[in-house]
Amino acid sequence: MNEHNWIFSKAANRMGSSIIREILKMLETKEIISLGGAVPDPKLFPLKEISEATHNVLKNNGAEALQYSSTQGYLPLRKFIAKRAQKQGIKATAENVLITNGSQQGLDLVCKIFINPGDTVVTEQPTYLGFIQSVNTYQAKFLSLPIDEDGLQVDLLENALKNHHEKPVLLYLLPNFQNPSGVTLSLARRKEIARLAQKHQIPILEDDPYSELHYYGTPLPSLKSFKCADITITLGTISKTITPGHRLGWVIADTEVIKKLALAKQATDLHTSTFAQWVIYEFCRQGHMDKHIKYLCAEYAKKRNAMLSAMEKYFPADIKWTKPTGGLFVWVSLPVGLYSTKILKDCIENKVAFVPGSAFYTDGSGNNTLRLSFSNVSIE
Amino acid sequence: MNEHNWIFSKAANRMGSSIIREILKMLETKEIISLGGAVPDPKLFPLKEISEATHNVLKNNGAEALQYSSTQGYLPLRKFIAKRAQKQGIKATAENVLITNGSQQGLDLVCKIFINPGDTVVTEQPTYLGFIQSVNTYQAKFLSLPIDEDGLQVDLLENALKNHHEKPVLLYLLPNFQNPSGVTLSLARRKEIARLAQKHQIPILEDDPYSELHYYGTPLPSLKSFKCADITITLGTISKTITPGHRLGWVIADTEVIKKLALAKQATDLHTSTFAQWVIYEFCRQGHMDKHIKYLCAEYAKKRNAMLSAMEKYFPADIKWTKPTGGLFVWVSLPVGLYSTKILKDCIENKVAFVPGSAFYTDGSGNNTLRLSFSNVSIE
Repeated sequence: MNEHNWIFSKAANRMGSSIIREILKMLETKEIISLGGAVPDPKLFPLKEISEATHNVLKNNGAEALQYSSTQGYLPLRKFIAKRAQKQGIKATAENVLITNGSQQGLDLVCKIFINPGDTVVTEQPTYLGFIQSVNTYQAKFLSLPIDEDGLQVDLLENALKNHHEKPVLLYLLPNFQNPSGVTLSLARRKEIARLAQKHQIPILEDDPYSELHYYGTPLPSLKSFKCADITITLGTISKTITPGHRLGWVIADTEVIKKLALAKQATDLHTSTFAQWVIYEFCRQGHMDKHIKYLCAEYAKKRNAMLSAMEKYFPADIKWTKPTGGLFVWVSLPVGLYSTKILKDCIENKVAFVPGSAFYTDGSGNNTLRLSFSNVSIE
Repeated sequence: MNEHNWIFSKAANRMGSSIIREILKMLETKEIISLGGAVPDPKLFPLKEISEATHNVLKNNGAEALQYSSTQGYLPLRKFIAKRAQKQGIKATAENVLITNGSQQGLDLVCKIFINPGDTVVTEQPTYLGFIQSVNTYQAKFLSLPIDEDGLQVDLLENALKNHHEKPVLLYLLPNFQNPSGVTLSLARRKEIARLAQKHQIPILEDDPYSELHYYGTPLPSLKSFKCADITITLGTISKTITPGHRLGWVIADTEVIKKLALAKQATDLHTSTFAQWVIYEFCRQGHMDKHIKYLCAEYAKKRNAMLSAMEKYFPADIKWTKPTGGLFVWVSLPVGLYSTKILKDCIENKVAFVPGSAFYTDGSGNNTLRLSFSNVSIE
């Protein structure tokens, strides 16, 4: 049989697989302690409550929950999300909410409606790998700005916006317990970024999967609560707080953006699973959300503390790492010249895995960094 | 508060809402007999069996079914789909299958990996509205060829391929009980199309949501069973045969295409709901599929017969319509000059709705046509 010579689109030629997914695949067959993926501990899933919610939905509203439904999403769930966003200082109604298949779909749809090939997107460096993949598909360029322990370095952003010859179409930020670094954007910098985004009229894409996994200190308000509220698009998800397997996330934004995203989503997959939306709404309606998150935070805090203590005890003095007060990650910087990919090989032989930091850099740098996730390992 | 002047991408500016979704939205508040959407009758959902399958999954494999999973999809489900495809003459293994969020996502991903702006896509005229929307997002041009009672007119295809100055990147076909016309591509024409596609090396995108809803006569083999098997990408879904609310479809294709589609899907939404995949696999594993489809076919055949009898009895002599032996649609041609959009207004006043045919044309024609769906109305 002759092999067909497939000719793919330019977008397709820009697609690469996530090194994380490749590592996870590789590990499936081996008994390895994985500090790799941002994978929640399944032992902490609220299985009993989800089972009850599922049972109730099928018993009381089975036919509706299994039928086609609206692209924007199930109205009671959108209302619930809009109301809950107030905790973070966000003013929103159900009209400002679109339900997506996890927040990765939010990233993809936002890229779809804002990016033309060749456009510039501003990101933190390092940044979330899944966003790098989305942006590559839409063939944009990166303007990647380094972070420190307080998040994006705002003076660098100010200079970049002043000197860059073309206006970026998006400013992508993970302000809370950033993936991969675990770093949180300080309050002062949030205000400064809000001012800059507003001044230059650059839409902010705020990706916020981790803010509810908050172990110490006071939570900071969403970027969508400042001056830049109108031009901020905020993404949320249940993947880290309830279950990733339902693929349920959301976008909160100006109604004009929501309408455009809904059109994009309609052509992409009609709508998010009606069934998943009904089940998760029922779970929330029963009041399980806050109680479960409180329990999760207590458990993850223990894991975080165990990891940080072990690092303190066993890591050589010339290695540095972040000490996040929430989220799932610790970010490690090795002495310059020491390659994390090389160390990974040795570690895998010793049955431990992590993600090399260069995966989170848009320019191939970061070779001396790595990400450790404490979510899905036992304290022992 | 100042309105922000949003600047959207070219793709976003090409997006339009489906008239069907708009009509459905409008009808939500009124007591109208809708012959509009391709919406299954929820009274026919296998609610008991789905509830059992869901219960089993949560009880026996809850943690796994609620966790992240692979982009390509749940292996036992992919095996099941590959095996079932043999019924249609398709040779496939699990490696040839990608699970998607309904077949609309299959359409979107295939467009994403094959279409550059300005490329040409061949379709039947009329064709499925959701595909028109996907193609518009990727800014391709249509080469739309008329169908008759045996499907695509192959001589027109042959001429078009001979005379068209650039090679189309896809040939999109709905060979079985086409949406919107209900028409089935004849065996002779399938062979001819296979030969032409092979000769010109144009990938076929075979969209097949309706072949299992087969009421009379002998089912015809998939285009992926002929000479063009290697270059044919076949889409399937459970939306018409089990439930649309789970959003579960699949692509069957050459492994090189599947790998590329999986990369595209990874950046789009990571993977399809793990939970939905486990539940539907459990439903299939229990052997419910064939029994349920047999039951569905018997019920839909009654509805189809009732609609065709009523049309025979009440429609004026100068109106023509198709008499499909499967699927969900009857396609009506009014005398030229009579506009279906005008008739729709009168009908809605009399509490009956349908979809004007022009929605399924890529060139604004088809004003004297309309689509009737008999799936979700009672025989009375």
